[in-house]
Amino acid sequence: MTIREEQVLERISRARGRKARLREDTITLAHGSGGKATHTLVEAVFREAFGNPVLDRLDDSARFSVNGADLAFTTDSYVVSPLFFPGGDIGDLAVNGTVNDLAVAGATPLHLSAGFILEEGFPVADLRRITESMRCAAEAAGVDIVTGDTKVVERGKADGCYINTAGVGVVHSPPAGEIRPGDAVLVTGPIGEHGVTVMLARGELDIEADTVSDTAPLNCLLADLACRCPGAVRRMRDATRGGVATVLNELAADAGMAVVVDEDAIPVRPAVRGACELLGIDPMYVACEGRAVVVVAPEASDSALDSLRTHPLGAEAAVIGHVKDDPPGTVLLKTAFGGTRIVDLLVGDPLPRIC
Amino acid sequence: MTIREEQVLERISRARGRKARLREDTITLAHGSGGKATHTLVEAVFREAFGNPVLDRLDDSARFSVNGADLAFTTDSYVVSPLFFPGGDIGDLAVNGTVNDLAVAGATPLHLSAGFILEEGFPVADLRRITESMRCAAEAAGVDIVTGDTKVVERGKADGCYINTAGVGVVHSPPAGEIRPGDAVLVTGPIGEHGVTVMLARGELDIEADTVSDTAPLNCLLADLACRCPGAVRRMRDATRGGVATVLNELAADAGMAVVVDEDAIPVRPAVRGACELLGIDPMYVACEGRAVVVVAPEASDSALDSLRTHPLGAEAAVIGHVKDDPPGTVLLKTAFGGTRIVDLLVGDPLPRIC
Repeated sequence: MTIREEQVLERISRARGRKARLREDTITLAHGSGGKATHTLVEAVFREAFGNPVLDRLDDSARFSVNGADLAFTTDSYVVSPLFFPGGDIGDLAVNGTVNDLAVAGATPLHLSAGFILEEGFPVADLRRITESMRCAAEAAGVDIVTGDTKVVERGKADGCYINTAGVGVVHSPPAGEIRPGDAVLVTGPIGEHGVTVMLARGELDIEADTVSDTAPLNCLLADLACRCPGAVRRMRDATRGGVATVLNELAADAGMAVVVDEDAIPVRPAVRGACELLGIDPMYVACEGRAVVVVAPEASDSALDSLRTHPLGAEAAVIGHVKDDPPGTVLLKTAFGGTRIVDLLVGDPLPRIC
Repeated sequence: MTIREEQVLERISRARGRKARLREDTITLAHGSGGKATHTLVEAVFREAFGNPVLDRLDDSARFSVNGADLAFTTDSYVVSPLFFPGGDIGDLAVNGTVNDLAVAGATPLHLSAGFILEEGFPVADLRRITESMRCAAEAAGVDIVTGDTKVVERGKADGCYINTAGVGVVHSPPAGEIRPGDAVLVTGPIGEHGVTVMLARGELDIEADTVSDTAPLNCLLADLACRCPGAVRRMRDATRGGVATVLNELAADAGMAVVVDEDAIPVRPAVRGACELLGIDPMYVACEGRAVVVVAPEASDSALDSLRTHPLGAEAAVIGHVKDDPPGTVLLKTAFGGTRIVDLLVGDPLPRIC
């Protein structure tokens, strides 16, 4: 163990012993980033109030049994700005996001709810465009929108349209045991496309890049993977807010292991890489809406990659790293220049309202 | 049949033959009222896009089976203003509202999701007060909040805090058949307290009234009723947006029957009646958040009333009317002065953002 690793270990054990404390008196944009501030808010306020064994797992979906049926249940609100962007809009985002939260829990998504908060004056034509997009996304994912709600707030009290979706699914392949040293870490495709696309669609930056959101339903891709590699998939997570870096940190912290990632192996399209360089952000922290991080047993690494690549949404899947037992709770990046650096949780929010 | 009733019948049959058409180009507050404009929006936009057999029932909860388990699933967003009011706040409202949507479907509420949309600058102390209130409400109703989400939008892009809850329950007593002529119509307690309380809590009106929100979980009350009057409960609805008048209209329209209500029999507390008179609104249209309308078989009317009254939340339950076969789809009110008038769906929204 190097001195640096010792420092990391000490930092983590200090952090573990400490109760999460929210230092701010008011909510900031960073509390919605998916990064450090969000984690502190969840720990110090939401888990403090609601804590129960199902919630405490803090997975993408809650899992529980009802009369012998193993169910997954999840929710997400969508406040993306702008509402329409290349490759998608708030409507398909709201369907795919919830479908994916169920899919990474090893569940078949079945039924979705849709709650709309509309601003007085919102164009009905835009609402129709959004609902049509939700219809198509639901059809593509094989789910039904079975219950809903609409609220309207006065002009200036919202930003056009916010959508909440919740989803119920039936678990077909629950996670197969704990993450272990030697496990392979895969991503299902190039990262960062959704976040960069939304950022550029705001038109506030003088950057032209030919990017398109990756929003897509991952349920078939991940169900095929579970079927072809039975018992080998340890964990799956979709890399939304906070990007792949955040998901890897959460996996490392939960498992008490290290994740070592090879920078060269991470698929990033040139347009995304270029835009990220101009924006001064690391694509590892940029939200995807149709990409998952998958941890599989070492011996299943090749077959998992093959399985993912047979599917159009996984055609550019890659093994990006592996699990080590030390230093626990840490994500290390082997850079293209031969160095190693710690990939920490996001501080602040460079890309607010990306989903 | 009187000439007036003939006119009603003609109006209804005209309305039935016509496809719902949304005349407005932009969303208005009335689209969130629960009344006529909401119905048109749901028909012309949401059902048009998402229509499926489960959604098309347009009940308070969707019902479906998963691996043999009969489930109910529902969602509601809460945008009440102000966030805190006598008797409750947005937190317990968000829990009780979803618990009640499940309870009136004859389901035992089990698990809730909570999605928060917070405005930058929202006081953390207020958020803690709200989550504490949700915790207490969840405990009282016997449900767990098992999954959640937090989004933050910039200052001025929301109104402090919006909450969406969705809920999953297991159906214990599905509705027992169709509404029939002679069936009794009950309410579980005095009406209009929630809406009037929130309206007055805004402090914009120079009216003092000692009212308190009726927000409460109805699951035990209604499960007891189903247990004590097996097979006799035809339909249950909670009388939220649009009040008892809207629920009765929906029941009448769905059943193709008339509901005749006796104005004198409707329980309204004096403070609520007084405030409604000053506000120029009919308490029949004012939202409750802890009252249900229940339709039972004629022979079960007394036992249903007895069952409700044994429970603190049903102590002031009353039989308010009965079902007739004619004129179909109509709610008729026998006034205290001996006349009869039609109680139609709400037009516009006299009480926006009540829940």
